[in-house]
Amino acid sequence: MSTVTPTDWKTGPAPKTADEWIARAGEVAAVLATDAAERDRAGATPYAEVRLLKDSGLVTLLGPTEHGGAGQDWPTAYRVVREVAKADGSIGQLLGYHYLWNWAARLVGTREQWEHVEAEAARGRWFFGGAVNPRDKDVVVTEDGDDLVFTGRKSFSTGSKVSDVTVLEGVLEGTDNHIFAIVPSDSEGLTFHDDWDNIGQRLTESGGVTLDGVRTPWSSAAGHVDKEFRPRVYNTLNVPTIQLVFVNFYLGIAAGALETAATYTRTKSRPWLHGGHERAVDEPYVIDVYGDLTAKLWAVEALADTVAAEGQRLHDDPDAVTERTRGDFEVRVAAVKARATEVALEIANSVFEVTGARSTATAEGLDRFWRNIRTHTLHDPVAYKRREVGRWVLEGELPEPTWYS
Amino acid sequence: MSTVTPTDWKTGPAPKTADEWIARAGEVAAVLATDAAERDRAGATPYAEVRLLKDSGLVTLLGPTEHGGAGQDWPTAYRVVREVAKADGSIGQLLGYHYLWNWAARLVGTREQWEHVEAEAARGRWFFGGAVNPRDKDVVVTEDGDDLVFTGRKSFSTGSKVSDVTVLEGVLEGTDNHIFAIVPSDSEGLTFHDDWDNIGQRLTESGGVTLDGVRTPWSSAAGHVDKEFRPRVYNTLNVPTIQLVFVNFYLGIAAGALETAATYTRTKSRPWLHGGHERAVDEPYVIDVYGDLTAKLWAVEALADTVAAEGQRLHDDPDAVTERTRGDFEVRVAAVKARATEVALEIANSVFEVTGARSTATAEGLDRFWRNIRTHTLHDPVAYKRREVGRWVLEGELPEPTWYS
Amino acid sequence: MSTVTPTDWKTGPAPKTADEWIARAGEVAAVLATDAAERDRAGATPYAEVRLLKDSGLVTLLGPTEHGGAGQDWPTAYRVVREVAKADGSIGQLLGYHYLWNWAARLVGTREQWEHVEAEAARGRWFFGGAVNPRDKDVVVTEDGDDLVFTGRKSFSTGSKVSDVTVLEGVLEGTDNHIFAIVPSDSEGLTFHDDWDNIGQRLTESGGVTLDGVRTPWSSAAGHVDKEFRPRVYNTLNVPTIQLVFVNFYLGIAAGALETAATYTRTKSRPWLHGGHERAVDEPYVIDVYGDLTAKLWAVEALADTVAAEGQRLHDDPDAVTERTRGDFEVRVAAVKARATEVALEIANSVFEVTGARSTATAEGLDRFWRNIRTHTLHDPVAYKRREVGRWVLEGELPEPTWYS
Amino acid sequence: MSTVTPTDWKTGPAPKTADEWIARAGEVAAVLATDAAERDRAGATPYAEVRLLKDSGLVTLLGPTEHGGAGQDWPTAYRVVREVAKADGSIGQLLGYHYLWNWAARLVGTREQWEHVEAEAARGRWFFGGAVNPRDKDVVVTEDGDDLVFTGRKSFSTGSKVSDVTVLEGVLEGTDNHIFAIVPSDSEGLTFHDDWDNIGQRLTESGGVTLDGVRTPWSSAAGHVDKEFRPRVYNTLNVPTIQLVFVNFYLGIAAGALETAATYTRTKSRPWLHGGHERAVDEPYVIDVYGDLTAKLWAVEALADTVAAEGQRLHDDPDAVTERTRGDFEVRVAAVKARATEVALEIANSVFEVTGARSTATAEGLDRFWRNIRTHTLHDPVAYKRREVGRWVLEGELPEPTWYS
Repeated sequence: MSTVTPTDWKTGPAPKTADEWIARAGEVAAVLATDAAERDRAGATPYAEVRLLKDSGLVTLLGPTEHGGAGQDWPTAYRVVREVAKADGSIGQLLGYHYLWNWAARLVGTREQWEHVEAEAARGRWFFGGAVNPRDKDVVVTEDGDDLVFTGRKSFSTGSKVSDVTVLEGVLEGTDNHIFAIVPSDSEGLTFHDDWDNIGQRLTESGGVTLDGVRTPWSSAAGHVDKEFRPRVYNTLNVPTIQLVFVNFYLGIAAGALETAATYTRTKSRPWLHGGHERAVDEPYVIDVYGDLTAKLWAVEALADTVAAEGQRLHDDPDAVTERTRGDFEVRVAAVKARATEVALEIANSVFEVTGARSTATAEGLDRFWRNIRTHTLHDPVAYKRREVGRWVLEGELPEPTWYS
Repeated sequence: MSTVTPTDWKTGPAPKTADEWIARAGEVAAVLATDAAERDRAGATPYAEVRLLKDSGLVTLLGPTEHGGAGQDWPTAYRVVREVAKADGSIGQLLGYHYLWNWAARLVGTREQWEHVEAEAARGRWFFGGAVNPRDKDVVVTEDGDDLVFTGRKSFSTGSKVSDVTVLEGVLEGTDNHIFAIVPSDSEGLTFHDDWDNIGQRLTESGGVTLDGVRTPWSSAAGHVDKEFRPRVYNTLNVPTIQLVFVNFYLGIAAGALETAATYTRTKSRPWLHGGHERAVDEPYVIDVYGDLTAKLWAVEALADTVAAEGQRLHDDPDAVTERTRGDFEVRVAAVKARATEVALEIANSVFEVTGARSTATAEGLDRFWRNIRTHTLHDPVAYKRREVGRWVLEGELPEPTWYS
Repeated sequence: MSTVTPTDWKTGPAPKTADEWIARAGEVAAVLATDAAERDRAGATPYAEVRLLKDSGLVTLLGPTEHGGAGQDWPTAYRVVREVAKADGSIGQLLGYHYLWNWAARLVGTREQWEHVEAEAARGRWFFGGAVNPRDKDVVVTEDGDDLVFTGRKSFSTGSKVSDVTVLEGVLEGTDNHIFAIVPSDSEGLTFHDDWDNIGQRLTESGGVTLDGVRTPWSSAAGHVDKEFRPRVYNTLNVPTIQLVFVNFYLGIAAGALETAATYTRTKSRPWLHGGHERAVDEPYVIDVYGDLTAKLWAVEALADTVAAEGQRLHDDPDAVTERTRGDFEVRVAAVKARATEVALEIANSVFEVTGARSTATAEGLDRFWRNIRTHTLHDPVAYKRREVGRWVLEGELPEPTWYS
Repeated sequence: MSTVTPTDWKTGPAPKTADEWIARAGEVAAVLATDAAERDRAGATPYAEVRLLKDSGLVTLLGPTEHGGAGQDWPTAYRVVREVAKADGSIGQLLGYHYLWNWAARLVGTREQWEHVEAEAARGRWFFGGAVNPRDKDVVVTEDGDDLVFTGRKSFSTGSKVSDVTVLEGVLEGTDNHIFAIVPSDSEGLTFHDDWDNIGQRLTESGGVTLDGVRTPWSSAAGHVDKEFRPRVYNTLNVPTIQLVFVNFYLGIAAGALETAATYTRTKSRPWLHGGHERAVDEPYVIDVYGDLTAKLWAVEALADTVAAEGQRLHDDPDAVTERTRGDFEVRVAAVKARATEVALEIANSVFEVTGARSTATAEGLDRFWRNIRTHTLHDPVAYKRREVGRWVLEGELPEPTWYS
């Protein structure tokens, strides 16, 4: 990757509006796109890429303006993730997860905690990772005086290795309570396994991590006052909020596949020798496929934007969130997740039909879009997302808040 | 149909906001829904239904407030069409066509003409029909002093029979110019054939009409000044504007199918005798189908709303419309038309899987949704809509404005 | 319908080979096709159609040659049903059900019983109907001396009204045993409700029937020796055998839809006015749709034929049928049922895209294919068929023999 | 790969019947399956694999029995290709291409030529490769006395590198005539580029080759008598015959994906933590997906077998082949190609939904099925196959014989 940050990011005025930030994300994507296929093959740890996200200002997009953040909202963050993912699905995921971990302080922390975290993060341009996998109780938290000590291992700790701070999660010994805390990513006791070797999203550093007595003060336990957790409904927005992150990098990857393929068809594909057309772009079937896939993508993008706006109304007034408004939002997110999954896979698979045999050369890297989408869309079964929607339609049932719904 | 207009429409305050008007459309739909299946089978001329649209105030939704109209915009009109179509696809179509014919004065007329038409239409609660079929040159217009005389026949004149005024279209003798004019629907020389007998949209009175020397003054020829047409790019918005009407009643019919089916599944469907579930709504496959179809519908609805908003920006400043902004809008409409067609057909076909064998009883009328969508989605080939999108993606080509693109 | 039987059926030699019988079925279809759409709309009781089936020799296709039957096997019967259903789905269903009821004697009867029934049926050209609906225990059978007396009602008794004999089914009082017996369709106590009014398969006379003390000797109770049922695994082949009947008339209806549409496209459809093609058959999207649908149909037809041959190997040696061979066959039938349902619906829905707007005229009757398939494919939930296949693949599980699996 | 050939291949009796040969192919597949994923990643030249095909006797499956061949027919060869491809798509392709090249002597050669080639090939267990790419005129053939000299390059020469003999193709200088000849693969002047690096079918050695004056006698020019080509319609069967090879290794790869996935689901997949099921195989959506995909696969397999049998009837009597019988066969092959492509891609993509997130580990290699199918199905545009079918249905048009139709 070109490690040279565009000059005008340093000398020109910072973006102000949502549209300007989305344009900035487009510039980041342009840098990433120059060698996305090569970097995907190489699979190196994305230090330079995270540097780019910092230099561009995108990492502090949601941060408070008084501390140097851009003060933007979630709908803009989702669009930014989508733009970045068009060029590089892994970096789109890293950025989206970063937004969530950063924001999670607000979701589960006390006001004092999250104001502190957001200020520090914005000032220091912290990049966030997470060692969170609530599916399994694989990390135990013990008390040691005023400290908490995390011990165990997590199978997937996306981005931690390239982050400044990491969100830890574990179960307090002798209880069923999950405790979250933010620690420096170079904390003693944190060992990254560097064992993420999957077919897609290869640069997300989603390997395992060992927590060998990672120590942090009790006061950093998110949302705890006097060692007791103070839940509110708003806490449960973490799932729909991160699932919309997923949706948006799926859509970005799909759009990237379509754009990359269209460029290929326009510039490299040959018309079929028996079709009587001079250029591939004149083949009726080629035109039809692009029309069909684009229409499908646009529909899901529109739903993603609409649901993001619905979610922002909840984020705007956290204390007004009710089980009903939370549940309705979750169901809408479930629906767009289902559509994004299906359409993104269809696009990433089908573009080959309109680029042709030579586009399967490894050097083209056109398969990375499918590998990327295929890998992450299995995060949790999409069948259960359709189920949430179906039960809501049939019985008005709200999904029970879990770590996945 | 209950011909009794809800009392509170007469005594209560009229709707003000877009949301209130959409709610009013929902009330209209509730009246229509009570006997929609029976009325579909009977196929009687929908005089009472048009009366309902007038009583509810929906016919003057787009009309100027100073003349008694509601002063709403196209996005609201589309949503109103969608609501009405949930209960009765034919009436949704009639209302949507009415909006277009009424608005067409503004599209192709001179300012003086359309201000006059809109004022009169709002004051008189005119219901509009059209005898327009520009595909064929089947009506000739001759000059007779200051009058124009229309002679010929149109195969499809949706709604004219139940309308107050009808938009006529014909080709001026010796030229290639299409002339549009608004005449009273009871004008001498207009004869309706009452020959609309198709499998769907049965109440739209879309039969043929004979124009046997229908006379109207030259001054009523839309957009003509000194017998010469003054085109502007904005004129060409008629196609995307009416195609979005189509989209919205397709989506309304699809939503109606889904809601009607869900009520049936909830109240009448039996669980399968070998499945071990107590209620049909607990069958995994039933839940999955509702989840899947709902997610698909929501995505297209979101795109329809998004594109309607994009179009409104053009309607807000007609003189600023350029070939590029017009073309981009047309392509977006083409995309949502393609999606609405595919998804609406899938829903109307698939709901039977989750209502079961007995739901095919003629008395249930559950097939009318499929028949309605199937019939109108053939208005013009959806393959050509995908083609518009495909060419735009590949070559940045703007669709040439025709009567269908 | 032309009630004139082709002369050469009477004067020429009877068909001998399977291919000749399939050709004969094609001739029957040609007669039925002349007014299939009108007859579907009229919905009259199909006496003439059953007469045609008798005159053509098709009713005794499976009958023993020594008694005048054609001695053909099930694969040929399925192909014959398919041919007839191309022209008229209802008559295809009636014929297929007739084959099953006739053959059922062999499935569940003693050798003495079925040899007697088959001989009499072939000699008398009996047409079979059934009043069988084992889902509900709605008919009770009581003993009265040497007689059995059937009392109750059945919701669906396909074909009984136009049949010579009817298979009755009921539960012996005080037991869980289902008893089957063949009685003359004009037996005292049998009253047809003439209440079949569904959207498809309108000529199948599938209405309800009341059994008001219908009397038949104990000796006619199928498969009973000394009032005790002697089951064998072969008995349980009734479900896959009749489900393959379903599959074949679905495929026939689908093929009929495709052929009817192709003729329409060839002779009536207009090319799109902005496409630059002279004939509809030159439109790339039209060609693509026909190619795609035909390929899909051919694949399911091939599977139907293959599975029919697999089934015939079981019919050829009834006593060698084991739970495993029966189960494997049922699973294969389940698979082809699932495919036939999906593909037939897709074809019947999609052909309109390539015939165009005017093909929705009621007089064309092109919607009857969709209505026919949509109605019968709900007989039992196809989701449970996919389930049988899935469990077999994953766990090697054989479907438990029930009245539907 | 285990390079140890199963002992009983050497000591036991050779297979005799088609079923035994298919079983032998299954044994070959079992050997290949043990390390298919690793070998795919390593991408080494498949010398050992070709050795296995020879040891197993599969390479001489179609060879004359009097010279040591198995004397089997094409339907059996297709099934054998399918079996092998279940374990290793590349090796399935190599074997299928070998059959075609070997057989091609019979297609285009004189009787004397092909009898000689088939005898030598069977006796010597020749493995065939090809340097044939008739799309481009990239090899020129010049005369030099009684010799022909091939000069130029071919982009794709599947299998040549691991073969004993290679079929060369070039255009005779000064003419439009394509000349085919079989030469030893270690002929002077043949240089393999080892540049096949595509996302799938990685072991097929499909890289380019330079022909630097490769010399062969005129008498080896296939089908030429006195330097003149004697065409017959049967020559044109090469396309449908090889396209059915494609179909069968697509189906094998798809079946392999499904089997591999089912084993994974059965043994490694975890049920969803919020679903209430104890095992993944009990999840309704999992069962449904396997049922659906299996049914789809079975339908295409049945069509592939049916069409193979139709083709064999042509191969059985080459001189009786007419343009009509050739054309009808080509259309049937086109249909099954279209279906195999679509269904194989759907399976290879969808199995991940039912294996889950961890199945995307690179070590599992579960993506190779999709990569393999995706790569080869682009050999020639499947849209043109649907087109052949569509034109045949609509207009009875026979595809013009080319190198691709």
